[in-house]
Amino acid sequence: MKLLRFAAAVSLWLSLWLSLAIADKEAALARLEAPENDDGYNQELLDLVAIPSVSSLPENQPDILRAAAWLEARLKKAGMENVQVLHTQGPRPVVYAECLHAPPGAPTALVYAHYDVQPAADTADLWTSPPFEPEIRGGRAWGRGVDDDKGSGVLPPIQALEALLASGGSVPINVKVMLEGEEEVGSPFLEPFLAKHAGLLASDFVLSADGGQIAADQPAALLGLRGALAVEVQVATATTDVHSGMAGGAVQNPARSLAQLLSTMWHPNNSIAVAGWYDNVREISEGDRQDMAAYGFDEQRELLGPLGASAAVGEEGYTSLERLWHRPTLEVVGIGGGFQGAGIKTIVPARAFAKLAARLVPFQTPEEVLALLRAHVAEHSPAACNVTMVPLGFSARPYTQQKDSLPNRAAAKVLTGLMGNPPKYVRSGATIPALAAFQKHLGASTTVFAFGLPDSNLHAADENMHLSMYRLARKAWVHLFYELAEQAAAVAGADHSEL
Amino acid sequence: MKLLRFAAAVSLWLSLWLSLAIADKEAALARLEAPENDDGYNQELLDLVAIPSVSSLPENQPDILRAAAWLEARLKKAGMENVQVLHTQGPRPVVYAECLHAPPGAPTALVYAHYDVQPAADTADLWTSPPFEPEIRGGRAWGRGVDDDKGSGVLPPIQALEALLASGGSVPINVKVMLEGEEEVGSPFLEPFLAKHAGLLASDFVLSADGGQIAADQPAALLGLRGALAVEVQVATATTDVHSGMAGGAVQNPARSLAQLLSTMWHPNNSIAVAGWYDNVREISEGDRQDMAAYGFDEQRELLGPLGASAAVGEEGYTSLERLWHRPTLEVVGIGGGFQGAGIKTIVPARAFAKLAARLVPFQTPEEVLALLRAHVAEHSPAACNVTMVPLGFSARPYTQQKDSLPNRAAAKVLTGLMGNPPKYVRSGATIPALAAFQKHLGASTTVFAFGLPDSNLHAADENMHLSMYRLARKAWVHLFYELAEQAAAVAGADHSEL
Repeated sequence: MKLLRFAAAVSLWLSLWLSLAIADKEAALARLEAPENDDGYNQELLDLVAIPSVSSLPENQPDILRAAAWLEARLKKAGMENVQVLHTQGPRPVVYAECLHAPPGAPTALVYAHYDVQPAADTADLWTSPPFEPEIRGGRAWGRGVDDDKGSGVLPPIQALEALLASGGSVPINVKVMLEGEEEVGSPFLEPFLAKHAGLLASDFVLSADGGQIAADQPAALLGLRGALAVEVQVATATTDVHSGMAGGAVQNPARSLAQLLSTMWHPNNSIAVAGWYDNVREISEGDRQDMAAYGFDEQRELLGPLGASAAVGEEGYTSLERLWHRPTLEVVGIGGGFQGAGIKTIVPARAFAKLAARLVPFQTPEEVLALLRAHVAEHSPAACNVTMVPLGFSARPYTQQKDSLPNRAAAKVLTGLMGNPPKYVRSGATIPALAAFQKHLGASTTVFAFGLPDSNLHAADENMHLSMYRLARKAWVHLFYELAEQAAAVAGADHSEL
Repeated sequence: MKLLRFAAAVSLWLSLWLSLAIADKEAALARLEAPENDDGYNQELLDLVAIPSVSSLPENQPDILRAAAWLEARLKKAGMENVQVLHTQGPRPVVYAECLHAPPGAPTALVYAHYDVQPAADTADLWTSPPFEPEIRGGRAWGRGVDDDKGSGVLPPIQALEALLASGGSVPINVKVMLEGEEEVGSPFLEPFLAKHAGLLASDFVLSADGGQIAADQPAALLGLRGALAVEVQVATATTDVHSGMAGGAVQNPARSLAQLLSTMWHPNNSIAVAGWYDNVREISEGDRQDMAAYGFDEQRELLGPLGASAAVGEEGYTSLERLWHRPTLEVVGIGGGFQGAGIKTIVPARAFAKLAARLVPFQTPEEVLALLRAHVAEHSPAACNVTMVPLGFSARPYTQQKDSLPNRAAAKVLTGLMGNPPKYVRSGATIPALAAFQKHLGASTTVFAFGLPDSNLHAADENMHLSMYRLARKAWVHLFYELAEQAAAVAGADHSEL
């Protein structure tokens, strides 16, 4: 923001610079669009996806480090400066790079993406091709992380920066790149990292390359995300499993107790029965209702169809889109205990567990909701059970931002030009903990600029990335950097305060 | 029984034979008791336990066949005749052998045991030594199946028969040996096998070498077992897992639905809430109450202590022993669905399951209870769930028998002599499907004669067999064969009808 505290002269200088750099921009775009370069861009996507950088599994920790080293080399090759692998307090480092040679008056953007991916072993039998042996079929690349976030997010801005740097060196805004390695486990070490490196990362705004579009011809502008809290509830009734004939009927059963405990957590109308859960939740505003109407949610196509679900189910009194964008949820993401194999083993188990993931809306906080859950579990624990609740390191505040910021306007103009329609203003029921953290530690709001499509099977088997969108993405970043500079020049000549 | 339809002359003949064979009996006992033979008897137990004949896991099917072949060879080596590996309609054969040279007037006994074992991979990290690398420590053998049923049941009668046959050839009753390979999966193919081979297996009574004693100095006489029914309840809400942020709150969650469905199956007083469940269950009789009082159940030592459980929990209005011996139960033996790994994966799962095992009392039947469960699940299935119920092949009627039968009297006398106290009359909450099946297809009741102790960790980690009891067992079988012949001689001289 301070860079914009110059005068109209600066605005003129930046405008002049931009008009002189137009040839560089065109050269960079030509390089990114050239069909003969496609194979190289595709191959580096396959190479990066082949590194199974699963952040939730300790056995993949070497792959996390391998992916970070791969990206360090890639950013250097792109011509970026001050390329570093920065340690966090956790095991998964941040890869950082910068390019700070923009003319006076240009803003500084922090480009954010994540190089870690979801696990795939648990769905291995459902993949058409192995998740970490990516391949190209039918105009898409297939593999774990090929969209989220390696193809939709990580590579395109690097490719755009490389093309600009190779075509005359003119990147029209200052760019810092920050690639995180723990997004898929809820970014547990991001906040202290941002606090520690607030100077290095200082920016006017964040451009998040983690996200997606509505359709190939319909861009989205993200205004909000749900927050999150994940916990594991563990029920122990004994120190050892026991023959169900020898003790069944006379001792507590932890799996049954867990089922009974869980069943107290929802009302029959599907609202959450944890006392105090809705105390800070506000009703949906008129502006939010207008955005939802303009969005035109297709429940069958966007929600039920891809899942093969027979009907929408949720909190009574709300539509599916309202439930996803504006209402909290509490989901059982995993449950287990006792015999898991085929057939039967006649035991009363000693332990059972459930993993719960809450999604939060303004003005809930993960700290408040954790306390409510603890109180609920303490009150409803069945007899002769040792019930414990363990936070799982996934905790984030809900995120919202203003619709009409400079980067939002710039992104909207670029996406409208490239995709043929203006963006629809959306929220997401999902969580990107980084966005709330950027707001808190850098004072920067985030504009999402990412190119996965809804049929990419995020977090599921057969994850994929349309190559047409991957191609569009690298081009779009060049346009965005220029549009941000142009709008900053215009603002610098007028009203400095609104960025 | 027809063999007893002779006259007093036959009784005299058998008595004479028994007095002449007394030297053979003593020689056999000397051989079984000789300390220099212990190593050999112990080694063959370790050899048999080292074969992981887990009947519930398809990957162990070759080991099932290996165990059957091992026993076929062992029975031949013992001098048994007509040794056969007989196929059932399933993959796990029965090993059969016989020795039918008893004098006229002697009864025919079918000695039953099972050579299959429970799985151990799921508790692998809890074993002190690997479950299928058995070893001897502290006066016990340790390994999966070392008690149940290879050391408590399978080997001792073979060793006893071998010793008798090697010491003059005099086995005083006719003995048929039947070793089953599917007891731990509920003997799904036993009934058609018994029906087909009813002639070969025809016997006056069954001696089950599957069971156990109360303590080293306190024998038990088993009068009844609970029946069983196992089913899996499967809840499917979608064809694929989905990101919990993208759909959570707007679609049905199968793990939550399963928990809610399960929670309808019990009343707050811990009785079973499935309609009709208790319709055929009778109240406990005065004789049963006397047996329970004489037994003197120690809840802490026999139930809670070994489990590390903090309190007894069960149907209100009944004691723990009443719950175990005379009341039905419905247990969750396994529950699963969604993410099972460490940490968190933010999905709404597509499926969840629970494995339920019911234990039944007279006059419930598995067929009736299956129908009641189906009706309950149909009535209580949550919205937008596809709920199915699959029987798991473990289905058995409850079993009861008269206290004062000839083999019960003979076993009581032998056990009193060897262990120093008369047996207590017990029931078990567990199920041996074979016993109800023998009653139905052979018209024969079963006397249990087996030597595991309560601290043997049946079905759990660190299963073990006291070597002192293993040694006692082989001796006890020699005494039992002679006692049966003697009592049969006495009966043949008096009242033929009571056997």
